Amino acid sequence: MSKIGLRELAKELGVSISTVSKSLRNSHEISRETRDRVMKMAQELGYQPNPYASFLRHNKSKTIALIVPELTNNFFIQAISGAESVARERDYHILVYNTNDDSRQEESILAHLQNGRVDGVIMSLARTTTGYERMNELMESGVPILFFDRICHEIETAKVTTNDFASSFNATEHLIQRGCRDIAFLMLSDTLSIDNKRKQGYLEALVKHDISLPPDRVVFCSGDEESNREQIRRLLSQDKRPDGIFGSVEKLAVSSYYVCRELGLDIPSQVKVLGFSNLRTAPLLKPSLTCITQPAFEMGAHAATVLFKCLEKKRPMIQNENIILKSELVVRESTGG
Amino acid sequence: MSKIGLRELAKELGVSISTVSKSLRNSHEISRETRDRVMKMAQELGYQPNPYASFLRHNKSKTIALIVPELTNNFFIQAISGAESVARERDYHILVYNTNDDSRQEESILAHLQNGRVDGVIMSLARTTTGYERMNELMESGVPILFFDRICHEIETAKVTTNDFASSFNATEHLIQRGCRDIAFLMLSDTLSIDNKRKQGYLEALVKHDISLPPDRVVFCSGDEESNREQIRRLLSQDKRPDGIFGSVEKLAVSSYYVCRELGLDIPSQVKVLGFSNLRTAPLLKPSLTCITQPAFEMGAHAATVLFKCLEKKRPMIQNENIILKSELVVRESTGG
Repeated sequence: MSKIGLRELAKELGVSISTVSKSLRNSHEISRETRDRVMKMAQELGYQPNPYASFLRHNKSKTIALIVPELTNNFFIQAISGAESVARERDYHILVYNTNDDSRQEESILAHLQNGRVDGVIMSLARTTTGYERMNELMESGVPILFFDRICHEIETAKVTTNDFASSFNATEHLIQRGCRDIAFLMLSDTLSIDNKRKQGYLEALVKHDISLPPDRVVFCSGDEESNREQIRRLLSQDKRPDGIFGSVEKLAVSSYYVCRELGLDIPSQVKVLGFSNLRTAPLLKPSLTCITQPAFEMGAHAATVLFKCLEKKRPMIQNENIILKSELVVRESTGG
Repeated sequence: MSKIGLRELAKELGVSISTVSKSLRNSHEISRETRDRVMKMAQELGYQPNPYASFLRHNKSKTIALIVPELTNNFFIQAISGAESVARERDYHILVYNTNDDSRQEESILAHLQNGRVDGVIMSLARTTTGYERMNELMESGVPILFFDRICHEIETAKVTTNDFASSFNATEHLIQRGCRDIAFLMLSDTLSIDNKRKQGYLEALVKHDISLPPDRVVFCSGDEESNREQIRRLLSQDKRPDGIFGSVEKLAVSSYYVCRELGLDIPSQVKVLGFSNLRTAPLLKPSLTCITQPAFEMGAHAATVLFKCLEKKRPMIQNENIILKSELVVRESTGG
């Protein structure tokens, strides 16, 4: 059985999705003739009405979706907790979807949400996402989407991020102040806005301090744990190895610890290490890890608050708005205490 | 609008839920008279048909729910990853629900799933759960539930656990072999089967080695991080303090590290510490943490495999079965290396 949705009905009838949707709800904004035409076509094509759809306008599905690119990441877990704390107060359910950083998974999840299972969506993009059609479709169908952390500039909505450029700039400057002159920057890719901002912060701090480095100091580690360690191993086994490592995401800082241990390199005397991280055990590591810590819980809570405010309105439209919370650099032993 | 479901229709008509469900699907197993009677009552009471319900028998919602008691816990995150890896192969979506260890949240989530949003459920109980009515209802309505880790003995279905008693017994014996004679056992509560098995393993190892301890060596830490640390602080500030700490869950081992650091107690020379844990940074801690590591990924994958096998059958019934995977004791510096 092929899936017949509002979109297909609208196409078949040559009217807008909104007209179809209103007709099926028997709205008086639509003429009786059109309503009848829609109903007839819906029956012919075997359209299955959706019990949640009728709740949508009044936000009665009482559920929002949180789409994240990974779960084995303390940042996202804490952001989910933040959103949950707000949702609980309002008696909403949160569905957590994991895209595993795969844009096809993400697309399939967004399609799945199309049929009115949720009132709104809070999401952080998969790294491979390039098209935004599904998101636009979902928003057009009345389900607001709000982004956090890995945002999408192309869509007009609220976006909750941290000051990634400044954090990265300051962290790099911290390494320079601690004596580093050859700092490697480990990143997953530079397709996302957030990755680019972090890389730019690193590069501009080098420029400010008149440090010029070969381009191979920006290392892409987007594989599994084993291949990432292999990349870092290669980097740290060079004759002229870096004296500082900046992990743009938590797992790359942790992998660097493992590789340093394996190669017998002392942190911080031989290599200084820092990274973006929300690791609860960062102060307990040997040596304790210098972190740029994002206010993950607050970001999730803030995103949820903006979304709920929007859902309380008659027409759930979110204003285009950039909400920027500040990350914190916590200096510990891994950069010389 | 009060919610009218299959259950309410069945009650009103004095027939079984299955009869109502089949009638609404226009099944030929049901007489035309009964079908008409059900349809009429459904209309009268304003029953909203569910587009997913018709998919259910053929597992076409292509979605399963994973209900966990907490997300800030590496065990559950890894179990989710395991289930996801199996689901992805079969093109299923996973919805993750977090009960926050609250039985009311759990109940509300189960009620939410009642209307056919998912084909099956994999869950780990909230700590405060005592009644199982909602679960039985969900299973009766054709949605199989399978338990892992924090299981429910009262419900006949498959249960995936680890050898908690033996693991706990061995870990306690390991502490005794390393010289501990006064071992405190930190736990969240003893309402769950899993907590009791772990406590029993600890107690029986003490008996085997002729160690008798006052009952206050079993410490309940079920509060927030701050109050748990306060409990551990009180324990370790006693004149005659324990020489070993066994955290029955990950966060209690980590809290013990923080308290030892605060009190200036050296691990392992003054206090030996071990715990159930799936912490990726366990080998990087100062000192590295001796862990009982559950095969979390495998447990999630196994649970999902059993569930999918069941969903492929015509009648989704899961056999009553106990599947027990083995945990591993990984000895590190915190118990004297």
